[in-house]
Amino acid sequence: MSDKKTVVLAYSGGLDTSCILVWLKEQGYDVIAFMANLGQVDEDFDAAREKAIKLGAKKVFIVDIRKEFVEEFIYPGIQANALYEDRYQLGTSFARPVIAREQVRIAKQEGAEYLSHGATGKGNDQIRFELTAYALYPKVKIIAPWRIPAFFQRFKGRPDLFEYAKANNIPLPVTPKSPWSMDANLMHISFEGGVLENPKHEGPDDLYQMTTDPRKSPNEPDVLEIEFKNGVPIRVTNVKDGTEKKVPLDLYLYCNDIGGKHGVGRIDIVENRYIGMKSRGIYETPGGTILHQAHLDIETFTMDKEVRRLKQGLALRFSEQVYNGFWYSPECVFTRECIAKSQEGVEGTVKVSVFKGHVYILGRESPLSLYNEELVSMDVQGDYDPTDVAGFIAVNALRLREYGRLRSKMAADK
Amino acid sequence: MSDKKTVVLAYSGGLDTSCILVWLKEQGYDVIAFMANLGQVDEDFDAAREKAIKLGAKKVFIVDIRKEFVEEFIYPGIQANALYEDRYQLGTSFARPVIAREQVRIAKQEGAEYLSHGATGKGNDQIRFELTAYALYPKVKIIAPWRIPAFFQRFKGRPDLFEYAKANNIPLPVTPKSPWSMDANLMHISFEGGVLENPKHEGPDDLYQMTTDPRKSPNEPDVLEIEFKNGVPIRVTNVKDGTEKKVPLDLYLYCNDIGGKHGVGRIDIVENRYIGMKSRGIYETPGGTILHQAHLDIETFTMDKEVRRLKQGLALRFSEQVYNGFWYSPECVFTRECIAKSQEGVEGTVKVSVFKGHVYILGRESPLSLYNEELVSMDVQGDYDPTDVAGFIAVNALRLREYGRLRSKMAADK
Amino acid sequence: MSDKKTVVLAYSGGLDTSCILVWLKEQGYDVIAFMANLGQVDEDFDAAREKAIKLGAKKVFIVDIRKEFVEEFIYPGIQANALYEDRYQLGTSFARPVIAREQVRIAKQEGAEYLSHGATGKGNDQIRFELTAYALYPKVKIIAPWRIPAFFQRFKGRPDLFEYAKANNIPLPVTPKSPWSMDANLMHISFEGGVLENPKHEGPDDLYQMTTDPRKSPNEPDVLEIEFKNGVPIRVTNVKDGTEKKVPLDLYLYCNDIGGKHGVGRIDIVENRYIGMKSRGIYETPGGTILHQAHLDIETFTMDKEVRRLKQGLALRFSEQVYNGFWYSPECVFTRECIAKSQEGVEGTVKVSVFKGHVYILGRESPLSLYNEELVSMDVQGDYDPTDVAGFIAVNALRLREYGRLRSKMAADK
Amino acid sequence: MSDKKTVVLAYSGGLDTSCILVWLKEQGYDVIAFMANLGQVDEDFDAAREKAIKLGAKKVFIVDIRKEFVEEFIYPGIQANALYEDRYQLGTSFARPVIAREQVRIAKQEGAEYLSHGATGKGNDQIRFELTAYALYPKVKIIAPWRIPAFFQRFKGRPDLFEYAKANNIPLPVTPKSPWSMDANLMHISFEGGVLENPKHEGPDDLYQMTTDPRKSPNEPDVLEIEFKNGVPIRVTNVKDGTEKKVPLDLYLYCNDIGGKHGVGRIDIVENRYIGMKSRGIYETPGGTILHQAHLDIETFTMDKEVRRLKQGLALRFSEQVYNGFWYSPECVFTRECIAKSQEGVEGTVKVSVFKGHVYILGRESPLSLYNEELVSMDVQGDYDPTDVAGFIAVNALRLREYGRLRSKMAADK
Repeated sequence: MSDKKTVVLAYSGGLDTSCILVWLKEQGYDVIAFMANLGQVDEDFDAAREKAIKLGAKKVFIVDIRKEFVEEFIYPGIQANALYEDRYQLGTSFARPVIAREQVRIAKQEGAEYLSHGATGKGNDQIRFELTAYALYPKVKIIAPWRIPAFFQRFKGRPDLFEYAKANNIPLPVTPKSPWSMDANLMHISFEGGVLENPKHEGPDDLYQMTTDPRKSPNEPDVLEIEFKNGVPIRVTNVKDGTEKKVPLDLYLYCNDIGGKHGVGRIDIVENRYIGMKSRGIYETPGGTILHQAHLDIETFTMDKEVRRLKQGLALRFSEQVYNGFWYSPECVFTRECIAKSQEGVEGTVKVSVFKGHVYILGRESPLSLYNEELVSMDVQGDYDPTDVAGFIAVNALRLREYGRLRSKMAADK
Repeated sequence: MSDKKTVVLAYSGGLDTSCILVWLKEQGYDVIAFMANLGQVDEDFDAAREKAIKLGAKKVFIVDIRKEFVEEFIYPGIQANALYEDRYQLGTSFARPVIAREQVRIAKQEGAEYLSHGATGKGNDQIRFELTAYALYPKVKIIAPWRIPAFFQRFKGRPDLFEYAKANNIPLPVTPKSPWSMDANLMHISFEGGVLENPKHEGPDDLYQMTTDPRKSPNEPDVLEIEFKNGVPIRVTNVKDGTEKKVPLDLYLYCNDIGGKHGVGRIDIVENRYIGMKSRGIYETPGGTILHQAHLDIETFTMDKEVRRLKQGLALRFSEQVYNGFWYSPECVFTRECIAKSQEGVEGTVKVSVFKGHVYILGRESPLSLYNEELVSMDVQGDYDPTDVAGFIAVNALRLREYGRLRSKMAADK
Repeated sequence: MSDKKTVVLAYSGGLDTSCILVWLKEQGYDVIAFMANLGQVDEDFDAAREKAIKLGAKKVFIVDIRKEFVEEFIYPGIQANALYEDRYQLGTSFARPVIAREQVRIAKQEGAEYLSHGATGKGNDQIRFELTAYALYPKVKIIAPWRIPAFFQRFKGRPDLFEYAKANNIPLPVTPKSPWSMDANLMHISFEGGVLENPKHEGPDDLYQMTTDPRKSPNEPDVLEIEFKNGVPIRVTNVKDGTEKKVPLDLYLYCNDIGGKHGVGRIDIVENRYIGMKSRGIYETPGGTILHQAHLDIETFTMDKEVRRLKQGLALRFSEQVYNGFWYSPECVFTRECIAKSQEGVEGTVKVSVFKGHVYILGRESPLSLYNEELVSMDVQGDYDPTDVAGFIAVNALRLREYGRLRSKMAADK
Repeated sequence: MSDKKTVVLAYSGGLDTSCILVWLKEQGYDVIAFMANLGQVDEDFDAAREKAIKLGAKKVFIVDIRKEFVEEFIYPGIQANALYEDRYQLGTSFARPVIAREQVRIAKQEGAEYLSHGATGKGNDQIRFELTAYALYPKVKIIAPWRIPAFFQRFKGRPDLFEYAKANNIPLPVTPKSPWSMDANLMHISFEGGVLENPKHEGPDDLYQMTTDPRKSPNEPDVLEIEFKNGVPIRVTNVKDGTEKKVPLDLYLYCNDIGGKHGVGRIDIVENRYIGMKSRGIYETPGGTILHQAHLDIETFTMDKEVRRLKQGLALRFSEQVYNGFWYSPECVFTRECIAKSQEGVEGTVKVSVFKGHVYILGRESPLSLYNEELVSMDVQGDYDPTDVAGFIAVNALRLREYGRLRSKMAADK
């Protein structure tokens, strides 16, 4: 081991983190490049490895953490019906802690005391990375170049990075940069920045990568049967062709395929970042949208309504915790445990039709449902006495009538 | 005024309430038939009036309360983003208090001490009707035949009603009854009961009445600009043909047209009734779905995130209050006031595309948004110092690091 | 087994349930008298047994369920810091489900299909008893005489009961009835009704039975050290005389002794009954008040603040569930599990002084506290960089400044 | 106006802010000393003014903001029943925004672009001051010496300040510093730091200043009648001697007198600071404790229970907002408006006995209460039909019985 300080850099192979890699060396660090395989599309991991070595990385770790991502992060999100501000499925938010956990693992293994990343100084990701790191590795030191004046004042724009790259033999990107920023993993792609910063500016057609334009998607739906146990999907079957998937990663990727094919899961929102600014983002989350809808259906079908009401409150907090980067906080651990508890009877099969950007629930069944067909039937009495409801209403009305009495009295006194 | 007791019956013109009308007379009541025009499709109000008179109603009131329904009930629902159990837009729940309020008004005007309705003994509507009545008319007496053994034991099924109708010169329905039950108003149609009681049984294609089958809907979207002020829509403009609507009722009906044309707003859910049983329902809410999505967008765009978080909690309670029939309760009055307060800056225009069963947000603008394009920009620094975030993260991490410290200590002590 | 229907009556030995016992026989039931020993003061169980037999009870069960009451009901309440409407410690509410559970157990064992109780028709207890019974014994039938017109119209007042008692050889109470109603168990005594129904009427000095009048209580405090583990007390030590208690029932009774001696735990409140009416009650809960204060202290000392915030929300719901009689509901089971989870690190010792009606916290220590004396010290820096806070504040202020900016703009536009 | 930059310093007259005043001048600022009169005990404002001028303050503003403090800050706190973490009455938290608002007002009036304060870098007060300042004066710049390395590294302990004081002719404090830190205003005194940093170390007897030791307080209670309107006290009357106070400031100070005389309002807690560390504090809040108890009573007496439940949730958020320094945030403005709305019918008189450290509620009356003595009476039927409750229970039990049915089925299937 050299005398130098060692830093593990979350490396993407792109221009920014390539420049950061070189810059860190310039500052006197040994740099270990770490790249997570989260199923991001069109990523050439071998080329990225080669490039990192060429730029002087002491070691390069490229780790496939797709399985953990799906099973330990996305699945609890499905259990929670997690949506941030009613719409965002948290595709980036779930990815950050699993990446940072692996980065910390490598840092500890390699005896590195420093972590670095290329996240911007205005975003959520810096927070999600660093809170995870501090929680799992309390003594760690973080180097966030985009928050260090010596760095961000030197690299004020893309041209400065280009110049630096040229001067340091960093290969320049061959494809022109798209006029927005992207973050991709197997759960979703997010788009923000650039022309999208004007919240009125419509997202262009060529932006989307995981989903077909619904105007061009098939004219016949796919119909899936999705089976859940403990609130997570355990089997997806395509009714049409009999395709069946059970392994979480396979199952999830298959839902992506079907959702993507039918243009499902596109949203365009303005959201509130943790640091308090509003930000416009476009997301495509094909598989997640299908599973969200299906889970919501089986949960409502099987769970007691009052339990669900409590769970709903916890899930709102969970979504905020995850969005804000607090996956490894005491409160998020607690919330996950409570939510998992609530899912013990969430079991059964939901049938959905996926068509032209939308997911339609067709029906559901469960061995554990509290749904009682005879009880609810309009044609059968079941174990139910309608005369009871008169008393139920009368007692509920008692408070309302007292309130009416008081208001009348007050009005009369005036 | 006769010596007889007078009852105001919520009358629909159908078989059930026609039989109830006659039955009430049989029990010695003077019956006033009341029918609310809430924009239900295909309703022949004149025929219903004639029929009621023929059956012996002392008076018949048919009142157009569509304006009040939209402005006083549906619009607060839009402000709240009201959804019951994450999906149901409450189309029946909003209708019940406005109907019952009118029924009470007529009862007071006519000196009637009794109200009656044909709601079943297993449903939510009986509760919504009666809680409204008790709240607004504390001394009222309710006659709910479907909860009175002398009635429901006599009329055990449809054949018994038919027989009674024949015996009493009640015209029989000419069209065969659909194999499910329906409730329609300008906001939505709900379907439940009959074959739908099996939650696995798919809703048949010919069930829907307000919305086109998305497989047959136009292949080109309609694009609307929806302007909001104080959280309610004040103008809808069709970008394609320039159609513009501003009067709430017109605006709402126009959204229904566009949504219906494109097959928007169909859901198939299992919900939890107030009385504690699970029930399967299919709903179509075309205009409501468009306005819900658009309002959600403009609200998130303009409202402070912490205000919204509080408002979201209140809105969840609001949805439950409305669903359970407590519109005229102290808590619902309070909740509406708080929510209305939160909407004071919810102002601006949202552009939406309506296509094949789905509503896509395209962009938004507002004179009052907290969105600050310069602040959030990836290219411009704005009035923002990224070095601040290091401190923000460090302080947020303090608690997580202490927690880590404690857990390590606990692990070491073992 | 006779041909007669068998009913298990919750019997107290008092005038009401004695008359009910005889009346049930009159209606043709075999009556099994059940009496729970919950540590109510001055109860003569042997006399009650003898009386029940004399009145014709087929069997009498007197069961000591004090241990279960403390360990399974009161202790979860301590974990929750349960207070209904901020003040009431739920002494009666916790007692009802443990009584009803035992009553159900006996009914099942004895093959009885009926349960009966003497709770009034305006109170909470009828609901607590019956919801427990229905949850644990879904097919049970309940006989609640005070809601049966044939009973309550016959026994309109105390004189009617006296007359019936005389006519049926039911021994009359020798002591005059106090001008209020009481419910006692080892946790508390509640007083309501009679002269207390006027909410302005002060509770008289001679009402209290578990607590000394603070004006007459000792002039020197007792000081206790209360040790908790998993959020429940596991040891109480009197600093003065070294008395030590560890067994839950003993420990709780000892806290009652100390609290009672110093006049601790008296409250006079108006509360909202589940059925919607407001009711005035006076309660004395000596030991519960001490343990509530001590637990609150050790919990805040050891629990992460964000976990506690979630737990606080759950505990509010728990208190309502318990008050309303839903102990054996899915939601209360879920809530208890979540709360218990939150208590896993609530461990340590609190020192309290009990004096003149008040409990004073003197100090606390814990092997598991997140409290870090060095970190918080005003004199030592610890592992803390104060410059971080500038960034923390700046980022938190970002949203407030944008809001200020918008409001200024709006004001300027006017 | 000089060329120099001008700073308004929150000045206390003590050693710290005297040194800061001189140090700010040393850094080249014109210093305006601002001192708020919030009714802190034993403060010699004239001496402080003289001292500030002697030290070179360009101007000195000493402003009596006690009235605003009580009416605009403490009173909304009473409406909210505000308690942070169930115990702390927020005496310091309410004071900070009113001080900072006045400091901002002076800064704007004097054309000063800088504000400074002597709050430590580990505490809550720095945040409360600065968030208020940023919200009301978005362009302001803050100088927080205890977070500036050049300052805090120079003044590492009290001896360094002493030396600096001597060298700069700053008069040294004549009384020895108490072994803890204090913050006083008319609402409370807080004690923390020093020997109190050990959470096990008992607060010494000579610490308290606003309250008599209950062991030495009078042996006879004072009895007060406290009249509320819109949820705030409008009259306090001492039953014994007829003293009556109506003006908010007078009324509040009188409650302090009575509470202090009887040793009311002492608490010893560990609380969670906003920055995430746990901190031990001792507080005495005599008048606030009396008014808190009285308001809680009149609120529960007059407010509908479901409204109160919503208000309780909002009040929990309010307490956190205030504690964390967000008084002038959009969410706190919103919360205050909602809470104020809830208080419109909170009207009536509560009678309390104040004795030996405790406040006892004796009774209450209101022209607007929903309490209905006849309705709740055990002796009178009132407008109430007990047979209704059977139906109420049966309907509530429906869900529990279904749940029982499902669990039995599940158990049987195993």
